[in-house]
Amino acid sequence: MTAQIQTLKPAGAPEQSWDLDAIVEELRLSREVADNIRHRGEVRELPSRAAVAGILDDLAAALFPTHYGRTVLTDESIDYFVGSSLERALTSLKEQVRRGLHFTADADPPVDDPEAKALEIIRCFAHRLPALRALLVSDFRAALRGDPAATSIAEILLCYRGVTAIIHHRLAHALHRLGARLVARLIADIAHSATGIDIHPGAEIGESFFIDHGTGVVIGETAIIGSHVRLYQAVTLGAKRFPVAADGSLLKGAPRHPIIEDNVVIYAGATILGRITVGRDSVIGGNVWLTHSVPPGSIVTQAEAQNE
Amino acid sequence: MTAQIQTLKPAGAPEQSWDLDAIVEELRLSREVADNIRHRGEVRELPSRAAVAGILDDLAAALFPTHYGRTVLTDESIDYFVGSSLERALTSLKEQVRRGLHFTADADPPVDDPEAKALEIIRCFAHRLPALRALLVSDFRAALRGDPAATSIAEILLCYRGVTAIIHHRLAHALHRLGARLVARLIADIAHSATGIDIHPGAEIGESFFIDHGTGVVIGETAIIGSHVRLYQAVTLGAKRFPVAADGSLLKGAPRHPIIEDNVVIYAGATILGRITVGRDSVIGGNVWLTHSVPPGSIVTQAEAQNE
Amino acid sequence: MTAQIQTLKPAGAPEQSWDLDAIVEELRLSREVADNIRHRGEVRELPSRAAVAGILDDLAAALFPTHYGRTVLTDESIDYFVGSSLERALTSLKEQVRRGLHFTADADPPVDDPEAKALEIIRCFAHRLPALRALLVSDFRAALRGDPAATSIAEILLCYRGVTAIIHHRLAHALHRLGARLVARLIADIAHSATGIDIHPGAEIGESFFIDHGTGVVIGETAIIGSHVRLYQAVTLGAKRFPVAADGSLLKGAPRHPIIEDNVVIYAGATILGRITVGRDSVIGGNVWLTHSVPPGSIVTQAEAQNE
Amino acid sequence: MTAQIQTLKPAGAPEQSWDLDAIVEELRLSREVADNIRHRGEVRELPSRAAVAGILDDLAAALFPTHYGRTVLTDESIDYFVGSSLERALTSLKEQVRRGLHFTADADPPVDDPEAKALEIIRCFAHRLPALRALLVSDFRAALRGDPAATSIAEILLCYRGVTAIIHHRLAHALHRLGARLVARLIADIAHSATGIDIHPGAEIGESFFIDHGTGVVIGETAIIGSHVRLYQAVTLGAKRFPVAADGSLLKGAPRHPIIEDNVVIYAGATILGRITVGRDSVIGGNVWLTHSVPPGSIVTQAEAQNE
Amino acid sequence: MTAQIQTLKPAGAPEQSWDLDAIVEELRLSREVADNIRHRGEVRELPSRAAVAGILDDLAAALFPTHYGRTVLTDESIDYFVGSSLERALTSLKEQVRRGLHFTADADPPVDDPEAKALEIIRCFAHRLPALRALLVSDFRAALRGDPAATSIAEILLCYRGVTAIIHHRLAHALHRLGARLVARLIADIAHSATGIDIHPGAEIGESFFIDHGTGVVIGETAIIGSHVRLYQAVTLGAKRFPVAADGSLLKGAPRHPIIEDNVVIYAGATILGRITVGRDSVIGGNVWLTHSVPPGSIVTQAEAQNE
Amino acid sequence: MTAQIQTLKPAGAPEQSWDLDAIVEELRLSREVADNIRHRGEVRELPSRAAVAGILDDLAAALFPTHYGRTVLTDESIDYFVGSSLERALTSLKEQVRRGLHFTADADPPVDDPEAKALEIIRCFAHRLPALRALLVSDFRAALRGDPAATSIAEILLCYRGVTAIIHHRLAHALHRLGARLVARLIADIAHSATGIDIHPGAEIGESFFIDHGTGVVIGETAIIGSHVRLYQAVTLGAKRFPVAADGSLLKGAPRHPIIEDNVVIYAGATILGRITVGRDSVIGGNVWLTHSVPPGSIVTQAEAQNE
Repeated sequence: MTAQIQTLKPAGAPEQSWDLDAIVEELRLSREVADNIRHRGEVRELPSRAAVAGILDDLAAALFPTHYGRTVLTDESIDYFVGSSLERALTSLKEQVRRGLHFTADADPPVDDPEAKALEIIRCFAHRLPALRALLVSDFRAALRGDPAATSIAEILLCYRGVTAIIHHRLAHALHRLGARLVARLIADIAHSATGIDIHPGAEIGESFFIDHGTGVVIGETAIIGSHVRLYQAVTLGAKRFPVAADGSLLKGAPRHPIIEDNVVIYAGATILGRITVGRDSVIGGNVWLTHSVPPGSIVTQAEAQNE
Repeated sequence: MTAQIQTLKPAGAPEQSWDLDAIVEELRLSREVADNIRHRGEVRELPSRAAVAGILDDLAAALFPTHYGRTVLTDESIDYFVGSSLERALTSLKEQVRRGLHFTADADPPVDDPEAKALEIIRCFAHRLPALRALLVSDFRAALRGDPAATSIAEILLCYRGVTAIIHHRLAHALHRLGARLVARLIADIAHSATGIDIHPGAEIGESFFIDHGTGVVIGETAIIGSHVRLYQAVTLGAKRFPVAADGSLLKGAPRHPIIEDNVVIYAGATILGRITVGRDSVIGGNVWLTHSVPPGSIVTQAEAQNE
Repeated sequence: MTAQIQTLKPAGAPEQSWDLDAIVEELRLSREVADNIRHRGEVRELPSRAAVAGILDDLAAALFPTHYGRTVLTDESIDYFVGSSLERALTSLKEQVRRGLHFTADADPPVDDPEAKALEIIRCFAHRLPALRALLVSDFRAALRGDPAATSIAEILLCYRGVTAIIHHRLAHALHRLGARLVARLIADIAHSATGIDIHPGAEIGESFFIDHGTGVVIGETAIIGSHVRLYQAVTLGAKRFPVAADGSLLKGAPRHPIIEDNVVIYAGATILGRITVGRDSVIGGNVWLTHSVPPGSIVTQAEAQNE
Repeated sequence: MTAQIQTLKPAGAPEQSWDLDAIVEELRLSREVADNIRHRGEVRELPSRAAVAGILDDLAAALFPTHYGRTVLTDESIDYFVGSSLERALTSLKEQVRRGLHFTADADPPVDDPEAKALEIIRCFAHRLPALRALLVSDFRAALRGDPAATSIAEILLCYRGVTAIIHHRLAHALHRLGARLVARLIADIAHSATGIDIHPGAEIGESFFIDHGTGVVIGETAIIGSHVRLYQAVTLGAKRFPVAADGSLLKGAPRHPIIEDNVVIYAGATILGRITVGRDSVIGGNVWLTHSVPPGSIVTQAEAQNE
Repeated sequence: MTAQIQTLKPAGAPEQSWDLDAIVEELRLSREVADNIRHRGEVRELPSRAAVAGILDDLAAALFPTHYGRTVLTDESIDYFVGSSLERALTSLKEQVRRGLHFTADADPPVDDPEAKALEIIRCFAHRLPALRALLVSDFRAALRGDPAATSIAEILLCYRGVTAIIHHRLAHALHRLGARLVARLIADIAHSATGIDIHPGAEIGESFFIDHGTGVVIGETAIIGSHVRLYQAVTLGAKRFPVAADGSLLKGAPRHPIIEDNVVIYAGATILGRITVGRDSVIGGNVWLTHSVPPGSIVTQAEAQNE
Repeated sequence: MTAQIQTLKPAGAPEQSWDLDAIVEELRLSREVADNIRHRGEVRELPSRAAVAGILDDLAAALFPTHYGRTVLTDESIDYFVGSSLERALTSLKEQVRRGLHFTADADPPVDDPEAKALEIIRCFAHRLPALRALLVSDFRAALRGDPAATSIAEILLCYRGVTAIIHHRLAHALHRLGARLVARLIADIAHSATGIDIHPGAEIGESFFIDHGTGVVIGETAIIGSHVRLYQAVTLGAKRFPVAADGSLLKGAPRHPIIEDNVVIYAGATILGRITVGRDSVIGGNVWLTHSVPPGSIVTQAEAQNE
């Protein structure tokens, strides 16, 4: 910008100068030399957060058309709406998944043809939607049973953060299993921002799952949760330590989060860490800190605080 | 869609086919047979989350016009702005409340005429707004007193998640008491998503209430909180167990959450469960787990962790 | 509104009357007499939440143009994009900062000329952006090292709430130090709402900082955090008690939050309160409650709960 | 607003006072006494221009899904898209038509049940859409044949104002014939604003109709146009004089505009007035002023201007 | 941009390079040297087209609240709506007028204090609104009388381009007379784009004015139109020649457009040029070309074309 | 949709059924058999009207940054803004041009590689922008000279439909010459809709061109206009007849519109048809109908109408 024709600068020009040339140059040096984080090689377009958010709306509408789509749909129109919402969602999701596959550096085997792979993923994903809908209905019913304040399925779908979280998770998990890791992770982060509930898309969760209140819940990548499990706010199912390879690097993907068997209830603030098993029908009390396995039917609580 | 005229299919058609007909049919079967959650009977339109969000903006603007409406309002214009914002908010709220009343299956006595009932609710609600404004101002002042980092009322209204939460709650609670349960619940969920604070609209909260930081706070449906109470993040005022009727079903609405008397402070992460009473002027320490009543003036703390 | 010409009222007028005149008058009395919170004196326009959100988007795009701006930028176009985004961001930020300075009642020395002061702040702020970018890159690398589930820098920037929080914080902190307190606080609140992480803009944080999961984290105004520190969800770095002046008023700004030295890891739910020091290379376990200093290399855990 | 509490007026209040109370009162008097144009009786909600514009987009997408809807639609998805667009358009159109029927003061017989009448109108309208599509395709082909600058059907649909006008007209005319006069008129006005072509919805127009350039074309309510007619810009098919009833009032709806038979071409700026007939295969030259019938095969031109 | 670090250019970078540096430099030279059109001196912010469009919506709503504002307004709410819409419109208009005054280079006397002048203009403008509303109602009634196809006042306000044009013109003319020339002109251009009717804000138009169809109408700056005048599409009231000063420059503002007296009707396409007078009760036929005055009661037509 | 499970139809279902299945099927038959207008072969995505409108905004901002971009740009920031706007415009334009090239069935030679061709077009187009800017400045100055009502260049750029039209045309013409025919045509249609001025992108127009008022102007594909030409509203430069090939088909692209030499003025409503030449310095009067060439310096008027 050295050719700036200074004599043409207006007399009363505003003093809002920020020394832009210098800052732009410093930022370029930071970007290209000192703190370069850009991928070397071809330009890879990132999945779009806004596009994925729109896809999630369309998928929710396709699965539960009168709740998340249009209330006025009738027997003659509902299938058209579902098919149209699906088409738009799947076509757009294919593009986002394709973009994401360019970032899967460590896929084994490597992704040769992201376009073809994305098509294959979406086709499989589409066929899983009916089964996934059945799982979600089991979750809604679990919510209605599990919260004395709940009054109807409609309220559950409209007003429960935990329901938003599980819908997002079941969609993200299906994509994760099919290999669409980055988009799955993005869906999880969108859910995290909207609900305060952070479930890694890798976590396996059985039917009739319910999270009440939910803010602060964290469920790790390799956690396995059975059916009819109920969680409250701020429950952590985390890793105790990270497996390290012989060369000192972190072992990615190694099992390191808990297994929660069927019919377990975990109250608010409980922290359960490591590849341990909480046996079926157990109850874990609030704020409990647990790093070893417990047998089926266990009731674990912490000692209560005393007055000073 | 069996009549598809296949011979007209373009030669180079894209391979983006998702087997839509099959998936739409499976989803219909899931919706109508296997996992039917739709209400039987007349079509009931759900309250609209977007409409309720707009109503909340209008109500906030009507209550605090120069903070949440238009800064430039003057003595000659402010009443017009307030009246106009109110009119729009109340007219729209009436429609949303009417919709919600169709879902109040268990109202006692049942709602015969939702239109008339909604009108009555909104009229009463409107008359409570001035008193509600006074309560909210007491809350803002409590925030200014209670947080050493706060510097002005303007900062309180602009930058405090806890203030957003209490404005939403006081509006939701007024509607809840008047019978507009579903809309009240929806307001609470909107606040939950924006603040990480989950207050059931049924909770009764006295004047000069302040939640600092607030993420993870949960306050249950039957909690009763006195005046000048201060809470920090991740405090739970929850149920210990759920009252069960003779037939084993959950007793909805039964008192099961704590009573917090005046001037109590509850620090971050404290969990207080069951229909117990925390006496006035008590201080509950961080991370405390409390399931029995404590007398006025109690100071409850947990033992501190030790170095290994 | 007493002159209402009643005879012109249409016969079939809707019954949607809310007694608006009475409510508007009561609200005016509340606003002007009973519960007046309005600043006396000149009209002061508040900083705009929407404008600041737009500025944050532009700054993120200027700092990381291919991640938060436009993926397709090339060597010939990237500097134009950066310069243009910066110009828009800085010009708009100057206006918001100027507004905010009108609310700095207690500035010492007082702000005589908010316009000039805002210009000075923005010029300094602009020159800090390259260094701030370097800090953020150290944070991203810390995230990639610290989370076994992370697979690429792109995933870190796209899907990590903790990354959103630290970008916002480093921008807010720079503004806070330059005196733009209200806008800095507003940025922190925007981050809080989007991430569940509440970092006061006054907190000083060293390089290579990483918050995993993050919901419920609270870091107080006078906290000081070294380099290579890692935090998990629901960690509190808070005040134990508030310093009080001789006249009983809260001492604003006095040091009251912890100092965390380099290479410390603090696990989920730990609560660290007061002006204590956690020595370098220490590990603080999950749910630990800590109110005294610990020497370098400490490992602090809480006793584990037992089965009943 | 007489109770304004003047003493509370801020000292440095802005001088931006507009004497609002006085102006509002004068406007009320104008509205209610001097210049009252409001309907007496029940509140009648007007059709919404924005809603009708959305309906027109949906109908165009349903009729020509790959041109005005989504290019990527495939054999398996196109019917879902068409059905879903139709459902949304028809449901919304029914509401707008119902509103409009309240303004049909002079309908004969009067509309007793606007809801039922609107339903009936929409059902008939829906069944006419396939035939209407065929007419429009004839129009597109006429455009391709009639304009030497046109290169493809795609260009015709994308870039021709005259095509926009005829699509709107054929939809408006169908509604007009079914009795939805006000909504039909609103559609015509939307087209007028977008194209500069003003066709009254009552005008009857045969197949293969083409308007080139089109700005300034006016076609009156009772005009009748045969098939394969071509018009250029600024052609008027208007009334010469307005039929007057015995009492001196205008006779609404009486035939007063031209009849244009098949295969007629009318060049730019021609003005044809009154209930005359232009016989088939005629050519009317530019700027011609014509108020009497001409037989089939006529060629009508105006004398050319001369140099001074 | 010479410091571009070429070696860092990614290998597979896209070929989408446009030689940006060269073009930007050429454009700068064009802007600053060869074809400089920028004002020398202080930065002058232009009035905003979008802001003025919003102001016009608010003013229309304030004048005709149930037609252009909210249909559901009731006796108790309508004044609040009117006052609130007015406040927003006038406050925003003041800012736009202030901007525009910086461009009034030739004002006589010159505008010393645009802020004060803008305030004065808006205050006067506000007081003229009730009288302006009365004029507009006379126009609507003229439309209802003048068009046999019109069925109700509601249709007139909703579906007539000519009504849009006259509302815009009467607002623009009031501003023009008060000295807000540039904003008045901008309003006229907004109307021109939406209606095809181009009325200079300087034109004086009496009550009960009606333009039917309207596309192509042009009314010049110094035209004077009496009451009860009716115009059809493509009528021009223009200048025959432009008065020239002794130095050969155009004399701006000199009377050069026609005077049309009361009760005149001018049919489509008539062109009336120069400072002539069309006497009251005259009828000017379609396509007539008129450059001399005609006495009251004249009927002017052109000879009709003949068949070849 | 034959599998519709009728017994599950809700009892009180709304009567809003439109016989969707039948209509969708009829539309499919219309689409695929009776009135098929779809291209056979690969799917070709149409250029997007909305995208092209955004591109035009960006190009206008790049050419006249303080008028159509951001008024507050300063010497240090303006080049960044220009470069960034250009980059966005050109990148997006390349995509739209690429789409359009798929529809150039009759290109000679045919377009083998639309991607490469689009890149080449955009590169050439970009280099013509500075010269195009100079032409436009000559047009603005012609407007300021030519309209006695104009007061400043700022008003010209802000309030003149004719200026909007010429900016669009010069951009469209450059693209047309480079072979981007469909996008050029789309730009012309966008201008036509916004201004009522219809200039085919093929028309060649010299410097210092001005259209006043402009509604209804039509300029044909092969028209050639010299420098310093001024046009008024409703002027047509059209074809008299269409050249026909030996086989009776229209000869596309053959010269058929007028040549207008330098310094010609053409008043409102004049119609000039055929490949004739209007010699330099001529004046063509309003409403004149001209189909033969006139020598330089001609003054052509029509006889004036007489009173009856």
